Formats: sequence, structure tokens, C-alpha cells
Amino acid sequence: MEMNRASSLPLRRQVEEYIVTKITKGEWAVGSRIPSQRLLAEQLQVNRSTVTAAFEELTAQGLIAGHHGGGTKVINNTWGIMANRVPADWGAHVESGQFKPNLPMIHTINEAEFIPDIIRLGTGELGPELIPNDDLTRLFSGMPSQVISLGYSEPKGNLRLREEISRYLKRHGIKADPDSILVVSGALQALQLISIGLLDRGSTILLEKPSYLYSVHVFQSSGMRFIGLPMDSKGLIPDQLTAVKKEAGKAIVYTIPSFHNPTGTLMDLLRRKAVLDVCNKERLPLIEDDVYHDLWIDAPPPPPLKSMDHSGNVLYIGSLSKTLSPGLRIGWVVGARPVIDRLADIKMQSDYGSSSLSQWAAKECLRTGMYERHASFVRSRLREKRDYLLDLLSTYFKDLAEWRKPSGGFYIWLKLVPTIDPRVLFDRARKQGILLNPGVLYDRRARHYLRLSYAYASMKDMERAIPALRNLVIELGE
Amino acid sequence: MEMNRASSLPLRRQVEEYIVTKITKGEWAVGSRIPSQRLLAEQLQVNRSTVTAAFEELTAQGLIAGHHGGGTKVINNTWGIMANRVPADWGAHVESGQFKPNLPMIHTINEAEFIPDIIRLGTGELGPELIPNDDLTRLFSGMPSQVISLGYSEPKGNLRLREEISRYLKRHGIKADPDSILVVSGALQALQLISIGLLDRGSTILLEKPSYLYSVHVFQSSGMRFIGLPMDSKGLIPDQLTAVKKEAGKAIVYTIPSFHNPTGTLMDLLRRKAVLDVCNKERLPLIEDDVYHDLWIDAPPPPPLKSMDHSGNVLYIGSLSKTLSPGLRIGWVVGARPVIDRLADIKMQSDYGSSSLSQWAAKECLRTGMYERHASFVRSRLREKRDYLLDLLSTYFKDLAEWRKPSGGFYIWLKLVPTIDPRVLFDRARKQGILLNPGVLYDRRARHYLRLSYAYASMKDMERAIPALRNLVIELGE
Repeated sequence: MEMNRASSLPLRRQVEEYIVTKITKGEWAVGSRIPSQRLLAEQLQVNRSTVTAAFEELTAQGLIAGHHGGGTKVINNTWGIMANRVPADWGAHVESGQFKPNLPMIHTINEAEFIPDIIRLGTGELGPELIPNDDLTRLFSGMPSQVISLGYSEPKGNLRLREEISRYLKRHGIKADPDSILVVSGALQALQLISIGLLDRGSTILLEKPSYLYSVHVFQSSGMRFIGLPMDSKGLIPDQLTAVKKEAGKAIVYTIPSFHNPTGTLMDLLRRKAVLDVCNKERLPLIEDDVYHDLWIDAPPPPPLKSMDHSGNVLYIGSLSKTLSPGLRIGWVVGARPVIDRLADIKMQSDYGSSSLSQWAAKECLRTGMYERHASFVRSRLREKRDYLLDLLSTYFKDLAEWRKPSGGFYIWLKLVPTIDPRVLFDRARKQGILLNPGVLYDRRARHYLRLSYAYASMKDMERAIPALRNLVIELGE
Repeated sequence: MEMNRASSLPLRRQVEEYIVTKITKGEWAVGSRIPSQRLLAEQLQVNRSTVTAAFEELTAQGLIAGHHGGGTKVINNTWGIMANRVPADWGAHVESGQFKPNLPMIHTINEAEFIPDIIRLGTGELGPELIPNDDLTRLFSGMPSQVISLGYSEPKGNLRLREEISRYLKRHGIKADPDSILVVSGALQALQLISIGLLDRGSTILLEKPSYLYSVHVFQSSGMRFIGLPMDSKGLIPDQLTAVKKEAGKAIVYTIPSFHNPTGTLMDLLRRKAVLDVCNKERLPLIEDDVYHDLWIDAPPPPPLKSMDHSGNVLYIGSLSKTLSPGLRIGWVVGARPVIDRLADIKMQSDYGSSSLSQWAAKECLRTGMYERHASFVRSRLREKRDYLLDLLSTYFKDLAEWRKPSGGFYIWLKLVPTIDPRVLFDRARKQGILLNPGVLYDRRARHYLRLSYAYASMKDMERAIPALRNLVIELGE
């Protein structure tokens, strides 16, 4: 047995494949001892170190394990192998090389967020001090018995909650009766449902570039293609949509018009109308992701595109995650009734609806006005935190970066002047207790960028992290 | 323009397609008036009634609407059309004709469950009187502030909850550390994650027939194929697995060994060992759906297959939905660590984790012993309700049906003697305020069967519904 040295697959991977095949075929049974590293190296005519590396990988994958009596045994032959072989569709990705490097980084971020005392300088959620734990506790302690139906909820979600959402939307200029609203477990699930329920494999998503959507796999895993469009200071450029539509085939548009993630951009009213006009003209369905709408700092944003939509062309997504509490996992999708019916059907088939505890809490928050009071409180605190971070940037990054002042939302899109490998910067910062969200998560080519967030970190943490980041950037910059 | 009378597509559908194409291509724009029914009938050389039917269908789909000034207008040209065109993959189904008839029935059931006072004679959940609303209220009223983290949770779910689940599993003979446990939003989501995260398109699922799994789309929508296997009084037959494995290609097994849904079958210890042995020998990964485990009535079930699994071959699914509260939406998957890592990664990319309120409540229920106390209470009540339903069946169905006495779980699999169209029976019963779960939902060919449940309906409701059902069966039977 010889490895193929001409193959593009590294020798170590070939050795892994060889071992996995033996296990899959049952030649090396679970519980049996496999040949020693030395023996395998001889048989396969590779370096011992290559075999060692393959053993280490397969040990990490849970397929083999060193045995305390010496030697190595097969410990798993089925699910373990599946878990490490990416199924055909799940691994699909849009721009080669984008997801493979990014996925581990997101994984690291998700894990690192639970390291005590780490400073989360890019996290897209409210800091602990901005989450109304006390208010929610009070809500629950006053919870009348039997009021929460702890059975499965209606297919579209608890009716009383949908009525409250309908009222809430009306204040934003959107007329939607409860039947046109689907309660979901956060905006991400809305995207997931749209992806599997409404779009054909091979459809194209036209979106801002950079975009938050590049950092999640929800559309790509269903076989969608992305075409990222450049933005100006007002967001998506309508002419770009027209231009690209011709080559895009079956396409939809995804946009975050209010306080865009990650750039903080706000689409003004004229631009909103222009985007909507182009979409109507080109028959481009549009997803409006408006989860930051209530988090304006300087002035309320223009009305949602959905409020100006008369043809059912806009599917509108909102959420309590960014304003009240991500842990509730409550969001909504609003659209034409047959569309919502279909999404509700799929939601029922995916998870039988969202937590009824969470739905009850969400309904109460909206009904009692607690939501509005809290949103107002969050806005005032975000203003302070934004201004504080901007001050720190002016002090420490004037010579090292460029940025725009966001008028709402969570993010500052920081363009670094020095050239630094984003992965190195990320790793080094993490070792210093600072968790960053590098720009490459949102656009593979945004290697000079960081998504900073003033939502999560406390001002004290910012005060510590920004100078430290300056030092790192100087140290690592070329 | 002429319709194709030789086509297998009915003329009405052809007219619909014609109209939809006009709308999709933008020839008939949103807001514009379309030709009258009379004119279209002339142009297309079809009966006026055919055009009327097509108009009605497209009106129901939200694409066109009668205008009060007369005539019909296009009101939607994008999402509405998508919602009514089943995407290639979502519509995939295993046995032709199975899902199209069933889906509407499930839809009807989901909707009908919220009709006040309807008697739910087949519902697979605890009745309102068995859900510990008071206990949960007490839990929340004593909730210490700041204890609930309302941020996003760890990728695998709240660690304290996973520790409690680990302890709980240990009492069932399953050794699993918290890192081998993933918290999910109910067992259905576990299946969804396995389906998109571990299985290749075209994989085969070997399962009991009938099975609950036939009534949900979670695997089929990802392109899986089902091979349903006959059961005996102890469940899956090991020899059948061996026999079918050869033709199945890449396959996994799905089983509900304890109080099977819908038949109530309990797999005994010997059979469990035999199934496990065959799966290990044939290298068939196995999903053990054990959500009814704690709901034994006559005696505790044998230990889970997972407790005897030494090779990581079994992925184990549990849930609080059947024992405590479906509204919490809390379940778990247990498996080898790399498998759980992968599922957790996909869960994060689907919905960012389950509700932290629900996770907190679930943790407290397990930690305080409330879960065990409640399970014991539910068991004693299920015994009463099961015996009551069995008595009623003995009185009213001795000559009309056959059934086995289940030793736990929720279900009696009732085989009717007279031949009745299940849809007609379903519709007629519903009109009388009785909601049935016909056997065809769980096996297309089980036209003679009903899944009865003693979990949901009160004894008073059973007392009313069973005689009424008898009369219906006599009336409709041939």
C-alpha cells in the first residue's frame, strides 16, 4: 500500500483516509487494536511523524484512542465518522475558501465568549447591564398561574403575542394583522425558514458587502449563491441591483437598512424608496432585516421599507434579541399571508414552535410598555457607550485607523491602516483577554477591518482594551 | 393560446400556470387589472367554470384579488408565488402520494387543536391538568434576580442544565458528561439537526412502520429515503435489519424502543440487546428516540440501548415535552463528543441556542427534584386515564376494533374492523367536535387504524367521545 505523492491531498490526510476506510469497512473493528504508528509508517512508506499527526487528528475526532495498556484502539465507527465528513450540501459554500477559514474563527468566538472576564469588543449583543433582568424577574414573580399555556403553541405562535407585535408594528407604520405574522426563535431562524421553505437551491442572494449574513451559513447550506454588492454611505446602491440582476438569475435581495451590521450604515428615506422601486421593477423579492430599528441614537430611522410595500414584495424580520434579551429567542417575520402560512408550516415541522415561556414573557413586555421603556433606556446608554468608544478611538487610533460615527445600532466598522494578518491579530488579542470580530467574518476581503461593538463591553473594559489594541496593532503592523 | 388537453395536468392547473407565468414575467404587473374570466375562457378555449376555479385558487394563494370596482387585480408577484411553489428539495418525499395527502391533514390537526372545547382524542401531549403550571409559577416567583443569563447561551446549551441532564441520564444507566450533551428545542429539532448535519442526501432511514417519523418531514425534506420495517409485539425485528441492510446502501436506524409512537410497543431487554448487536455488526448507526421513557405505567422499561452502547453507535434523544411541558421546548441529544460538537455548531447556526428562560426552568425542575415528583404524578394519572379508555373501548368497541393494552406512554393503536375512508371519518368526527389522529399519518397503508391517546383528553371527554365515535364508525362503515 502506497500513498499517492502526486495527489493534492496532503500525505497526513491520505493516512487519515486510509485508517478511516479500514474502520468504516469494519476491517478494524470497534474495540480492536490497530497497527502501531511505527508499523503503519513502514507499510505506507511515510514518515513516522506523518502517522503521528494522523493519529492525533483521528483521536481528536473521537474515532481512535490511545489505550493505557499501550497501543491504539478503535473506539467509534459510525456517528463519529459522519460528524467529520461534511455532508454534500451542508459544506456547500459560495466563495471558495471563505467558510473553511472562517468557521473555526466563529467557533472560537462562540466558545471564547464564555471565558470569564474576557473583554468582548465586537459582540453583537447588549451587555449584561443592559438586559432587564430585574424587570423580567418582576414580571415572572407576578405571573398568574394558568396564564401560561405550557402546551404547544398555535402554528404561527401565541395569538396574544402576535396581536401585541401587530400593534408594535403599527407604530412603525407597518400594517400587519396577526395572521400575517409568524413568531420565530430569533431572526436567524427566520432566515433559516425562508431558506428552506421559499428558495430554490441555486437561487442567488443579493446583499450588502460586507454583511452579517456572510458570517452565518444559513443560506449557503441550502445551496444559495451570494452576490455581495458595494455600499455607499447610504447603504445598498439601487443601480447595482439593476446591473447585477441580469446575471443573477433567480434572485432575492437581503438588506439591513437600519444600522447595518457590521458597518452601522443607515439607509435614508430616499434611498429606501429607490431600493424598493428597483426591487418592484425588477421583481426582486426583498428581505428586510430590521432588528436594530429601535436602537437609534441620534434620531429615529426612516420608516421600514415594509411600511411602503404595497405588493407583498418585502418580507420583514424583527426581533427582541437586540433590544431586550437575546436569551428569550423571540423574533418575527411579517409578510403576505400565504407566505407566512408556508413558513409557519415549516416552523411546525422543525421545532413545533417557540418556547411558550418566552412567548409569554415577550407578550407581557410589549403589552405592559416595558419594552418601549427599556428600548428608551438602552438608547440613552448606547449613546454614552458609543460616544465613549469614539472618544477612545480618537485618542488611540487617530493615526492607525479610519471610521465613521454610527447614528444607531451597535457597530463601528474600523479600518486599520497597518497591514496585519487578521488571524494573528485575533489570536494575539485573545491571549490578552480581548475578543475581536475581524472584518473577514463579514467579507473575506475586508482584511483591514474590525467590527467594534459598543453594546457589550463596559466602558471600563473599553478603557482597558482600546489602548491594548493600539499596542498590538503597532506591534504587529507592517 | 391553447391549453394542452393531452397533458396529465388538469386544465384548471394549466390555466393557473398560464396566469402565474404572466405575473412572474411581469406582463401582468402588480396592481394591474387582468382580463375578465369570460375573456380568458374564450382566449384559452376552456369553460368559464375552469377559469373561475383557477381564479379562486390564485385568490386563495394571495396572488390576485377581486377588486371592489369590479374586475380582478394582481396583488403580489414574488414571495406569494414562491410560497406556493414547493422548492425542489422541500417537497421531496419518500413514498409517492404520502405527503401530499397527509400534509393538509396535519395542518388541519394543528389548527383544530386551538378550537375551544374540541375533544383531542389522539393528541400526543399531556392534558392541561397534567402540566405543572402551579409548580412552574412557584419556581418563577422565587426566581432570584440575575440568576438567569438572558444573553445567548453556550453553544451546547446552559452548562448547569447539561450537568443536571448528565445526572438524570446517569440514573437511567447512561454515562454522559456535559460535553457529550446538546440541549435542543425539543426532540424534533434534534432530528432536524441530525438530518442536516450528519446525513448525506440519499441516505436511508430504517424505521418501524408505522412510525411517528412518517408524520413529520424532517428527514424527507433533506432528501432521505425511508424503509419501514414490520414490528412484532416487541418492536423492531433484528433479522429484518440484516435483511434490508444489503439493499439500503448508506443507512441508519431510527427507533422508539419505549412505548413506541403510535403503537405503544415496548421493546424488551433481550430485543434491545439483539437490535444493538445487529447494528454494531452491520455498522448501522442508530437513533434512539426515548422521549416516553419515564412514562411507564405498569413497570419501568428496560435500560435504554444507549446505556449498553460502548462504541458510540447510538445517538440518544430525550425531552421534557412529554413528561413535563411541551411549551418549554427543551430536549437533548447525547452522543460521542465530536458528533455533539458538530450538532452544536449547526444548532448555533440555526437559531443561536434555545430560550434561556426555558433552559433555566428545565434546570431548576431537574435540580429540585420537581421533575421526578411530577413524572411520578403523571404516571399515576396516566394509569387511571389509560384504564378508563380501555374500559370504554371494551364497552363500545369490542365488536368494532382490536387493540393491545399499552404498558406505558400515551397511545392505543386501534384497528377498526369496518372499512372506512380515514379522511371521511376524520372530517365527520371533527364536525362533531372530536379530533382524531388517523393511522395513515404514521403509515400510508394503515387505513384501518386510529392512534388514540389517553394523555390529552379528560376522562369526561373520553366518556363523551368514545360512544360518539362508535356511532360514527357504525354509520360510515361498510
